[in-house]
Amino acid sequence: MEERFSGVVLRRKDDGYDARPTMGEIGLNHFAPYLMNRLMARWNANMAEELKELDISTAKMRALAVLSVSSSVTINELSIFAVTEQSTMSRTLDSLETQGYIRRQPRPEDMRIRDVSITEEGRAAFEQVWPAMYDRLLQMFDGVEEAEYRMFISTLHKILHNIRKHEI
Amino acid sequence: MEERFSGVVLRRKDDGYDARPTMGEIGLNHFAPYLMNRLMARWNANMAEELKELDISTAKMRALAVLSVSSSVTINELSIFAVTEQSTMSRTLDSLETQGYIRRQPRPEDMRIRDVSITEEGRAAFEQVWPAMYDRLLQMFDGVEEAEYRMFISTLHKILHNIRKHEI
Repeated sequence: MEERFSGVVLRRKDDGYDARPTMGEIGLNHFAPYLMNRLMARWNANMAEELKELDISTAKMRALAVLSVSSSVTINELSIFAVTEQSTMSRTLDSLETQGYIRRQPRPEDMRIRDVSITEEGRAAFEQVWPAMYDRLLQMFDGVEEAEYRMFISTLHKILHNIRKHEI
Repeated sequence: MEERFSGVVLRRKDDGYDARPTMGEIGLNHFAPYLMNRLMARWNANMAEELKELDISTAKMRALAVLSVSSSVTINELSIFAVTEQSTMSRTLDSLETQGYIRRQPRPEDMRIRDVSITEEGRAAFEQVWPAMYDRLLQMFDGVEEAEYRMFISTLHKILHNIRKHEI
């Protein structure tokens, strides 16, 4: 399936194209969502393996990662940023609170909202995980220069803007 | 979290860097796996909604997509290409066979291997799904020119090469 494709993938009506190409014309290897699904399945499986050794779940790692760079967030925001369902995130936070890694506090302006933030212990726990994550990032982008990485990130931001459902 | 980051993300030892940056220094929005996980969660949820209306599962759609561009594949290859666990793929194929969308045949050189291929009916079924997939691709890459798309695909191929576990 390493075929070379010389046609145009993005055939927009505004650019004068009147018919969609077929999947066969484009080829799976030029269909970005296919490649990204394969990549992320592999990345997530690799990370889950590393995390197992460190005795931490994917949801916990993701929650700590998000909280380590945010002053405080709601559980709703956290479940979006951490790509984890609210019900799972809720259980994850219970467990992280018991471990002393996070705290939840009612927001002074609106007591119905509870802000989640990371503790020093939580920060230390995430620091145990981070080297594995970062080294896998370097492995993932082996052979990719910083400039290409920045263009890649820039395209990802455009896509995220196009397809996100929430305004965050 | 729309911070601007001016440092170097990929700090490789070979380039003379001796310490990893922290997650906070890079920022979530410059950590590619984070962005890709968020994107693909959104893409997969959007597609699942569209497929529900067409009364087809994600696993079936993926199997038909792969088979529509392959002459024939084994169930092992199919589960990798379609990013679907073998057990799920096995059930999916049973159901697709009952619907008359695929056929399975023992390979003449090795009767233990069964090759899966798509039927004309299966091709027609995938053609019902494809317009929704393709139009969502255009939406996803709104504001991205063909040249940028090609560079994006090229980077994805490098990553896939770096992190794949199987030689396919």
